[in-house]
Amino acid sequence: MTEQHAPERRNLADADLTRAVEASFDGTPDPRLREVMQALVRHLHAFASEVELTEDEWFGAIEFLTRTGQMCDDKRQEFVLASDTLGLSMLVIGLNHRHPTGATESTVFGPFFVEGSPAFENGDDLANGAPGTPCFVSGSVRSVAGDPIPDALLEIWQADEDGLYDVQYADLDEARGRGHLRSADDGRYTNRSPMRPAHIHFMVTAPGYQTLTTHVFDESDQYLDTDAVFGVRSSLLATFEHHGPGAAPDGRPMTGPWASTRFDLILAPS
Amino acid sequence: MTEQHAPERRNLADADLTRAVEASFDGTPDPRLREVMQALVRHLHAFASEVELTEDEWFGAIEFLTRTGQMCDDKRQEFVLASDTLGLSMLVIGLNHRHPTGATESTVFGPFFVEGSPAFENGDDLANGAPGTPCFVSGSVRSVAGDPIPDALLEIWQADEDGLYDVQYADLDEARGRGHLRSADDGRYTNRSPMRPAHIHFMVTAPGYQTLTTHVFDESDQYLDTDAVFGVRSSLLATFEHHGPGAAPDGRPMTGPWASTRFDLILAPS
Repeated sequence: MTEQHAPERRNLADADLTRAVEASFDGTPDPRLREVMQALVRHLHAFASEVELTEDEWFGAIEFLTRTGQMCDDKRQEFVLASDTLGLSMLVIGLNHRHPTGATESTVFGPFFVEGSPAFENGDDLANGAPGTPCFVSGSVRSVAGDPIPDALLEIWQADEDGLYDVQYADLDEARGRGHLRSADDGRYTNRSPMRPAHIHFMVTAPGYQTLTTHVFDESDQYLDTDAVFGVRSSLLATFEHHGPGAAPDGRPMTGPWASTRFDLILAPS
Repeated sequence: MTEQHAPERRNLADADLTRAVEASFDGTPDPRLREVMQALVRHLHAFASEVELTEDEWFGAIEFLTRTGQMCDDKRQEFVLASDTLGLSMLVIGLNHRHPTGATESTVFGPFFVEGSPAFENGDDLANGAPGTPCFVSGSVRSVAGDPIPDALLEIWQADEDGLYDVQYADLDEARGRGHLRSADDGRYTNRSPMRPAHIHFMVTAPGYQTLTTHVFDESDQYLDTDAVFGVRSSLLATFEHHGPGAAPDGRPMTGPWASTRFDLILAPS
């Protein structure tokens, strides 16, 4: 059998193979997609070549990816968790959020955000029965110039005292420790939530500003320097004050122990 | 807040982050798992950094991986297909099969192998109604020294004339163009299958030999040099002879057109 052109995809080994696979994306119309796919091929092949990946290991990876996909549903995102624990999530956040000084830093999105959380008013209790010590959380949403940002959308979610998010309870069909509210005219927000969190998630959206996805961490937490997802920023630590029975900041009588913290959210311009 | 040790996982950016994630696997007891995971982290981070992966692209990848996993079932393996089209499958095969000269070369496993295929005897028709021109396939299984290998297990699978494997028909619940048989005392094997294949899959297993996963390709096929999965080897091409109505090699009367080919399978020692 004779060919007009030299065979390009036959009898390929190692470096020639990598170049041929790269070249197979040369005709991709979108230049960005072409760049990303060709870099993916180079780095994927460099990884497999460096470790001399065995066929058993390759198939183990195929099975891991398959099972991971099949564990995902509308409330569970295991690939985000894998990305978090491999440090990829924080790397992507770092690459994309080189904020002007003064804006609140971003951290990982995590696997437990759920679309369509319940709406709350400022001061409402987001716990909805989640076990934990009540905690009053307050602060304001501001621009880097210090201007209050009214009507910003704050999505808030956190685990309960047992370390579990609502969606991790198989028999629970309602939101707990999760909800959204809007900043007041002066940028302030307030909510109550179950306490003992290692962190509380915030996603803050306002027109004209970059969406901020971040956490507030308890500065006394013993795991700050061993975060499994590499997401801790010193700027995101807050003091959680612990109180006995008495009047809460909004005047409500508290019969058991409770806590409070204040955390301002500074948004970068979009 | 004071620390006895310098923070290791806080306020990390780019190269420091990559080193911290690598270091997080330092305590992995299995040295091979540690090596593979640390290399994965380095190459994954190098990829994301080189292309400055955006958050939208990162989330697009998360969604792609999730949907890919959810399309997989006991008859469909979309991650293998992704690995094939990214050239990873052929790279892993190349890294692991630097065979002694004379052994049949390996090629991609592909996404369409199914455990528990029907058993056939030598000479049986594997088509089971799959549309296509019948093709007689014969050859022998031998060692590189030329010794026949009796009782080798041959798993065989292929697409039909329309380019589809049995498992790609939603309404088909039986094997077509798929089965296993064993080599005879003199190493020979024979089967009939539907024709118009770009390739026929073989997986050959015999005690004392490396399992061989390969294809036989039709040397007249127009797509040999543009294989989407980079799996063509010149050594795997065979001549498919086309015949009119008449007697088949085994004496059976053939009323329509049919084809035949011979392909020997040479196994490397394990």
